[in-house]
Amino acid sequence: MSRTTLRGMTTALRVGLLGCGNVGGALAHLLVDDAERIAARTGIELQLAAVAVRSLSRERDAPIPPGVLTTDAGAVVSDPDVDVVVEVIGGIEPARTLILTALKGGKPVVTANKELLANCGSELFEAASTAGVDLLFEAAVAGAIPLIRPLRESLAGERIQRVMGIVNGTTNFILTRMSEAGASYHDALAEAQSLGYAERDPTADVEGFDAAAKAAILANVAFGARVVAGDVYREGISAITPQDIAVAHKLGYTVKLLAVVEHSDETADAAEAVAVRVHPAMVPSTHPLASVRDSFNAVFVEGDAVGQLMFLGRGAGGMPTASAVLGDLLDAAHDLTTGGLGRTVTLRRTTIRPIDDLRSAYYLTLEVADRPGVLHAVSGVLGKHQVSIQLMEQEGLSAVYAHGYSSGGPSPGSGAGSGEGIGGGESGARLVFVTHPAYERDVQACLGELRHLDVVHQIGGLLRVIGP
Amino acid sequence: MSRTTLRGMTTALRVGLLGCGNVGGALAHLLVDDAERIAARTGIELQLAAVAVRSLSRERDAPIPPGVLTTDAGAVVSDPDVDVVVEVIGGIEPARTLILTALKGGKPVVTANKELLANCGSELFEAASTAGVDLLFEAAVAGAIPLIRPLRESLAGERIQRVMGIVNGTTNFILTRMSEAGASYHDALAEAQSLGYAERDPTADVEGFDAAAKAAILANVAFGARVVAGDVYREGISAITPQDIAVAHKLGYTVKLLAVVEHSDETADAAEAVAVRVHPAMVPSTHPLASVRDSFNAVFVEGDAVGQLMFLGRGAGGMPTASAVLGDLLDAAHDLTTGGLGRTVTLRRTTIRPIDDLRSAYYLTLEVADRPGVLHAVSGVLGKHQVSIQLMEQEGLSAVYAHGYSSGGPSPGSGAGSGEGIGGGESGARLVFVTHPAYERDVQACLGELRHLDVVHQIGGLLRVIGP
Repeated sequence: MSRTTLRGMTTALRVGLLGCGNVGGALAHLLVDDAERIAARTGIELQLAAVAVRSLSRERDAPIPPGVLTTDAGAVVSDPDVDVVVEVIGGIEPARTLILTALKGGKPVVTANKELLANCGSELFEAASTAGVDLLFEAAVAGAIPLIRPLRESLAGERIQRVMGIVNGTTNFILTRMSEAGASYHDALAEAQSLGYAERDPTADVEGFDAAAKAAILANVAFGARVVAGDVYREGISAITPQDIAVAHKLGYTVKLLAVVEHSDETADAAEAVAVRVHPAMVPSTHPLASVRDSFNAVFVEGDAVGQLMFLGRGAGGMPTASAVLGDLLDAAHDLTTGGLGRTVTLRRTTIRPIDDLRSAYYLTLEVADRPGVLHAVSGVLGKHQVSIQLMEQEGLSAVYAHGYSSGGPSPGSGAGSGEGIGGGESGARLVFVTHPAYERDVQACLGELRHLDVVHQIGGLLRVIGP
Repeated sequence: MSRTTLRGMTTALRVGLLGCGNVGGALAHLLVDDAERIAARTGIELQLAAVAVRSLSRERDAPIPPGVLTTDAGAVVSDPDVDVVVEVIGGIEPARTLILTALKGGKPVVTANKELLANCGSELFEAASTAGVDLLFEAAVAGAIPLIRPLRESLAGERIQRVMGIVNGTTNFILTRMSEAGASYHDALAEAQSLGYAERDPTADVEGFDAAAKAAILANVAFGARVVAGDVYREGISAITPQDIAVAHKLGYTVKLLAVVEHSDETADAAEAVAVRVHPAMVPSTHPLASVRDSFNAVFVEGDAVGQLMFLGRGAGGMPTASAVLGDLLDAAHDLTTGGLGRTVTLRRTTIRPIDDLRSAYYLTLEVADRPGVLHAVSGVLGKHQVSIQLMEQEGLSAVYAHGYSSGGPSPGSGAGSGEGIGGGESGARLVFVTHPAYERDVQACLGELRHLDVVHQIGGLLRVIGP
């Protein structure tokens, strides 16, 4: 590959850009508008040498130099006049083939493609390793936040125990609106859609698919664990109710959708086992993750020596994502111009612990008949499965006074608050439990059995509770 | 320099350690106890080849291999059997001379020495640049938090506007206790001392000297600005009262000691001017920095493309600091073994804006006579200097009823709350102002004039207010 040195100490590097949508356009702006400042600061001149797009005729506000647009992405990755390739097309193909071609040709690649990495990471990392060039992907998880580089480099020697992140801005916005404005899930989702934070079909965000892809990449980087998106246990937020959030607040918790990757220490081959999951959770309100609001992302890392770290910032958006891509580009440029070999992620065969093995405290709500013996029956099921209760609260669901008590009857204090005390077969009550740490399989066994109790009308929210 | 490759893919690197106190001892533990895991993960075997200490006879619990202890630090940095040097002695000399010798000899250096960098950074960076080797110092600012590497690398192309950090854990602990437990400054300081968070002589922490050194380094790294510790405007927290904190809370703010480095855009040579200061400030309670509790550190970064970022973690402690040193060591090892050149910080001549040029909102309290015309006199002074008032509150300082009003007299509502309404020459009141953004020089001019007003008994707290 040829590189020319312009005006003194500046090294010119020719960038091939695959895709020119939201992120690609923002990157073009940074490369063109800030070229002089970047060169002055870093000694590197990044030139947009080729830009592959789907249609040449589409109008763009990005400052693409004349003559560099092409519809032939394959030619860009093979072009000897391209030193480094940026892939912001998204999706599996043709991105996968293009990146593999670039790497095999000795070109470093910067990508923001979480879907591709979460499904084909192993193949791509190996190709980069074989070619001895950089494959950088800071923008693929938590957008603008410098996270992948700190995990790969700053924490390379750290024994990481857990990585726990708010990695989807759409769901964090929805949960923030539910929490702070008392909005329902559907109203908060509609607001997110009207602000452009959520797609018209919000499934990928609200059901946790987007977060699961990022969790797989975090497992790759933080633990060297061979995990793909499909390995990740996944629950979304669409079943969260304002009541769940209100009760959480009362108990000192905030509800967040978390991607959790952790070392599993309850197996003989501990070093090689990880648990990877995405689900809503109750986070103590004093925990740094609880204060992450709106569409911000944040990732909390716990390690033996380093203690607790958190990285917070924008998880999406053209400019923030382009900023992360630019950082990677300059890193690749540094390695190219100084002759350094690229860094790779080496994945090891990994046992993925099933969600059944999870040990956690749980928040559980049940809608039950408001009659004597209900709590006795429910607590019997929990006890049978070794699920012990840390906290129980009961709220009346319907007005018990509707059964004809006059205002001179039992006081509210002695009535509505106690499920054991009052008859009245048709009224309901809500039982809220927080358990001591228990195994998921035992909690699920409880739920299976509770569903068949005739005093249990409905099983409400089930949320895992994060420790302080 | 010679390096031998052991068992297959592993590269051995010999570490010369200068200093074996809290951080050095923790690093020795990591290098020895985790050697196998680190080698398996990174392919690098870090061997403790030489450890320079002040006294050979002192008992240590660190696992130092036999025969490597020496009191001759100069021999360690010149030893051809040492590939990379770690300096954790602290202070200016002999650390400065030892590091310069190592760099000139082509050895990369990792240091945690904020005092040295904040005073001699320029000389050290130039020496590293000339030698083409790494000078890494992640541990020098905000301890365990990966911050220097993200600023140097991930954000190398970013136009950073402001870096604003809680970089001293002692003062953050004290302010947290004052805020959450209502403790006085002196009680909170005593608690910090009893927990080992504060020194017996706490001056370096509570008067902001430690934070000022870190601010200078942040100015070096984030802006390439040639700033030393002595250039940093500095105020500590010893004058903060529980009342200041209570009023801040009522207004929706949290009081934090901040190190602030910002681009100054109000000068002709904007690109080359920075403002660098350390002072307590009122931070909006919804701001991510407001939720940083106890002895945690956090650094908030704002850039044009990246938006807002925050990095949170432990700012001190043997193991967290050693974790940051280990990350740097592995980075230096990567560069050495792959033939990459080290990264340097290039400093430019910089105009440092005086604090007088700061434009900020201010919180100001005055203890005044509780008599007619006081507010008129005070507001006249503020207006004269173009300081406009966003919010004013008055609290009675002494019981106005002491002047002989019976309980049938003026109601508390019409009395204690209004300085204009009540006579009674000896009683006092407290005026609390929050101003609109104003220039520091104008606010200081106000204070100078207010001091000479006979109705002003005392000037209380003056805190800068951070925008949302």
